[in-house]
Amino acid sequence: MADTMNGLKRTAYCGELTTAQIGQELVLAGWAAKQRNLGNLIFIDLRDRTGIAQLAFDDSSDRAAFEKAASVRGEYVLMARGMLRRRESVNRDIPTGEVELYVTELKILAVSETPPFDIKDGIKTNEELRLRYRYLDLRRPELQSAILMRHRIVKLVRDYFDQNHFVEIETPILIKSTPEGARDYLVPSRVHPGKFYALPQSPQLYKQLSMLAGFDRYLQIARCFRDEDLRADRQPEFTQIDLEMSFVDEIDVQTVNEGLMKRIFREILGRDLELPLRRLPWQEAMERFGSDKPDTRFGLELVNLTDLLKNTEFAVFKGAMEAGGSVRAINVKGAAGTLSRKEIDKLADVAKLFKAKGLAFTRATADAHSSSFEKFLTPDEVSAVHERMGLETGDVLLVVADPRDSVVFAALGALRLNLAKRLALIPEGSYDLLWVTDFPLFEYDPDEGRYFAMHHPFTSPNLDDLDKMESDPGHCRARAYDLVLNGTELGGGSIRISDPSVQSRMFAALGMSPEEAQEKFGFLLNAFKYGVPPHGGMAYGLDRLVMLLLGKDSIRDVIAYPKVQNASELMTDCPNTVDSKSLDELSIAVTRTED
Amino acid sequence: MADTMNGLKRTAYCGELTTAQIGQELVLAGWAAKQRNLGNLIFIDLRDRTGIAQLAFDDSSDRAAFEKAASVRGEYVLMARGMLRRRESVNRDIPTGEVELYVTELKILAVSETPPFDIKDGIKTNEELRLRYRYLDLRRPELQSAILMRHRIVKLVRDYFDQNHFVEIETPILIKSTPEGARDYLVPSRVHPGKFYALPQSPQLYKQLSMLAGFDRYLQIARCFRDEDLRADRQPEFTQIDLEMSFVDEIDVQTVNEGLMKRIFREILGRDLELPLRRLPWQEAMERFGSDKPDTRFGLELVNLTDLLKNTEFAVFKGAMEAGGSVRAINVKGAAGTLSRKEIDKLADVAKLFKAKGLAFTRATADAHSSSFEKFLTPDEVSAVHERMGLETGDVLLVVADPRDSVVFAALGALRLNLAKRLALIPEGSYDLLWVTDFPLFEYDPDEGRYFAMHHPFTSPNLDDLDKMESDPGHCRARAYDLVLNGTELGGGSIRISDPSVQSRMFAALGMSPEEAQEKFGFLLNAFKYGVPPHGGMAYGLDRLVMLLLGKDSIRDVIAYPKVQNASELMTDCPNTVDSKSLDELSIAVTRTED
Repeated sequence: MADTMNGLKRTAYCGELTTAQIGQELVLAGWAAKQRNLGNLIFIDLRDRTGIAQLAFDDSSDRAAFEKAASVRGEYVLMARGMLRRRESVNRDIPTGEVELYVTELKILAVSETPPFDIKDGIKTNEELRLRYRYLDLRRPELQSAILMRHRIVKLVRDYFDQNHFVEIETPILIKSTPEGARDYLVPSRVHPGKFYALPQSPQLYKQLSMLAGFDRYLQIARCFRDEDLRADRQPEFTQIDLEMSFVDEIDVQTVNEGLMKRIFREILGRDLELPLRRLPWQEAMERFGSDKPDTRFGLELVNLTDLLKNTEFAVFKGAMEAGGSVRAINVKGAAGTLSRKEIDKLADVAKLFKAKGLAFTRATADAHSSSFEKFLTPDEVSAVHERMGLETGDVLLVVADPRDSVVFAALGALRLNLAKRLALIPEGSYDLLWVTDFPLFEYDPDEGRYFAMHHPFTSPNLDDLDKMESDPGHCRARAYDLVLNGTELGGGSIRISDPSVQSRMFAALGMSPEEAQEKFGFLLNAFKYGVPPHGGMAYGLDRLVMLLLGKDSIRDVIAYPKVQNASELMTDCPNTVDSKSLDELSIAVTRTED
Repeated sequence: MADTMNGLKRTAYCGELTTAQIGQELVLAGWAAKQRNLGNLIFIDLRDRTGIAQLAFDDSSDRAAFEKAASVRGEYVLMARGMLRRRESVNRDIPTGEVELYVTELKILAVSETPPFDIKDGIKTNEELRLRYRYLDLRRPELQSAILMRHRIVKLVRDYFDQNHFVEIETPILIKSTPEGARDYLVPSRVHPGKFYALPQSPQLYKQLSMLAGFDRYLQIARCFRDEDLRADRQPEFTQIDLEMSFVDEIDVQTVNEGLMKRIFREILGRDLELPLRRLPWQEAMERFGSDKPDTRFGLELVNLTDLLKNTEFAVFKGAMEAGGSVRAINVKGAAGTLSRKEIDKLADVAKLFKAKGLAFTRATADAHSSSFEKFLTPDEVSAVHERMGLETGDVLLVVADPRDSVVFAALGALRLNLAKRLALIPEGSYDLLWVTDFPLFEYDPDEGRYFAMHHPFTSPNLDDLDKMESDPGHCRARAYDLVLNGTELGGGSIRISDPSVQSRMFAALGMSPEEAQEKFGFLLNAFKYGVPPHGGMAYGLDRLVMLLLGKDSIRDVIAYPKVQNASELMTDCPNTVDSKSLDELSIAVTRTED
């Protein structure tokens, strides 16, 4: 039977001990990180949330305490009373290395079996085992610190928005299913057999209704759910910093969010952020960087060659251009030495992942000028290309042509990132934060043969493009913007539709019949009859924001209890089966089982 | 087509205008609460989150603005630029009643149909209609203010716990189903056919695991779910202030929470709360007030008569006592005039709701002494009862006897509350906050013939009662405590079991086989092998706390988007049916439908 605290109270935290407390009687509590028994001396590293403190025992110690100390193993839970004193040999590796607690009373509050992996940073244990014992994994200082920092970031976000008159409103988790976009998680209703709730993919409609309700500025750190086949860094449930404002335009929303970023950068990263941030229209982002979330910390910008080659007889380029596409290139300055033919072939494989049919190149080394395409062009065309690309000896030109601009952008955009990493073009520890604006309102899906909303169906068209909603949807710009950090989307938002007739036209443009729109979004269309203020907002993926700020590689490193790629939680073995009585009460039956 | 803001920016809020701004050009935005057209004068009450401001137009106003103002109807969305000036006739009813905006430019940003009810306080509209148009209901100042106050309270709670080194940890919403207590909401897994997630009834296990993980102090404002047939003031999803601490005993947890209460009382109610709060052991609360959440703002305490009547021949009392029950009474001082025989019969009906078989009484008016039971007692017994009860002329004695103490307590406890209301014994605006401690660990369910955990199966037994877990479960006390405000439970908590062997005994005492315990809570029992710190915590129902602090009658008045008693949300008509493709993807089928 373990000891009990029996009224003994902790009076200090391990990691906060200082030499100023020397001579004081203190009580510490925590886990035994390490025990060293030198025969007549015993040292225990005691670990709590704040750090490590050394407990010391020797010949003159209370015999019972000494013997108890001798029995301590890793992860035992201890409480120790003693006098803080200066250490004989200082440990410079830890902040409390100058002091130790000379223990007069030791309680073993709980014992521990040997953990399945070491409770320390940088272990190589496979993630599955660590997730199965997440409560032990979380004891490791690097995970402790990540979760504590996450708390600090969230607190800062809440304080900032509170100071800016945002009101936190809790919106429901059990909501109406309105499929449009990703798949909803569904919850069978027991009281209404055959009916279901959905878990929200975002509080979008409730936050818009909150603007209609006059709350003026809304904030929520909201749990959201998406039943998608998880890509590497997605979770079935995730947390969103969600905000909305009334009587605003794009600049108002962006300005408030820039203020947040400035504070986060100062308080979390210790950096000064210059405002206003750069704004890059979507079209420019695509043409220069091949991405709607460009990393602009390095060059390798895309260059359009289409006009130079409009008369070419080279079938590959000609076909692409005639079908409405383009020929674009990047010049990898001075990389001819690094990028062998073989390396270029690998780059072609990357381009193909993004549906490019191939990768044309020119490799200008000092002793040879080799090119996969120049022989098909006229000398004038070749020199025009060289001139525009600023081609010099030592450079490598990579060219993609495709009937669809989107493929050219995606392929060259991916090559840019690949090359930046390979050639170490990104300055270590640099931050690059910018807005991408003027997104297209629609995105055409050739498979389904219809337009989809690029953001969501409540995004306002650019007022100058209203007519294009029907006449030229592909060129209708949205009042939508993304905030991009180092090539990752931190968040996005838009000014919303506040005119009921525009909302109806939007549903129609998405191929929804009036009846269908009424069935799915009738409550919203109805609400729009009663005075909608102009409004807009934004949402951030909190997990990803925290991950980027803390320089982690995975969002699982900043979520206390994450799920794995197949949407299960290994620690509790969830999801699991339930008894048939429960299902019967819900008026549902299982039609297929996993095994 | 409505106007657009077209770059015009709001520069002030309606309710914040002061005479200091007179002479300034300002831009306001909001909803038209009222329009008065006096021919050559038009006044519009403009409403936003902060209050009301008057817009004024006259003969000299811009003609377009004047005509636009004439067309304004209720709930139109307006933006107005103008000069703030002193009003001719001051309106003392509103804070901005000394000033008005003399408008030079008016924009009608959206029109509105006539709302289905008036947007003002104190309307009699039935709640169903209001909930159907919740976005309009929320425009009413009393609901606006309730939601804004809720935000303020939550902010205060978060700040308080942050200052006390609690770390906010988000625990999952999609968790393992471990039925024990109320019914879980279930979520079918698409990826694992035949398996389900549950929505958490509380983050109990995750917060305990977070203590095991070394986070030391945990806080979360957590969404919780319970699929129960709703009583009047329950919601299928509700919000909990949830906290947990390591290396603590009851007093430590209570002290931190008293600090929170002190701050809430000061900042929200403007009252000073004296600490420490009173502590009433559960047994005493039951014996004196007939309730584990006693309202001690008035007397009418219960008095035990069992010892005086142990030899009585009166069958009703005798039977109750012989079966192990008791005879208890309350003296309703000076109520003989108010409580006629007929009134006492009504009280008997109340007692019967709580399973009492009847209500014995003595009514001592000046001219007659009537009693339903004294004739069955000896004169000595009668005078002993009178003496103990302090019976005087004008008093009414109410007596309940039952083989089960729990029935006696429940019946007299209910009568106490009923009488306090009827006789107006509760001082207006008074607050009574106290701890009820030493709850029983178990509660016996005669229907199921077994013991249940009164709080939950992770509550630690009182260490002095450990042996009673098996030998005398009915008298085993728990290290559990509730915080009670004015007869309502605000929150409850306990010191948890941290000894794995005690946890196993607890599961056994609840009738769970070792296999069943392993299947349901194996991950917890396994976790307990690796060094559990002593820990305990507490949880508050946030909705109810806010309701009580704001003096509201219903939690629906402090929840932005509540559900009704049949667990549906009227505004969006949720839950609803979903298409069969979705169900098929989830490997489930509906076996019964509502209609």
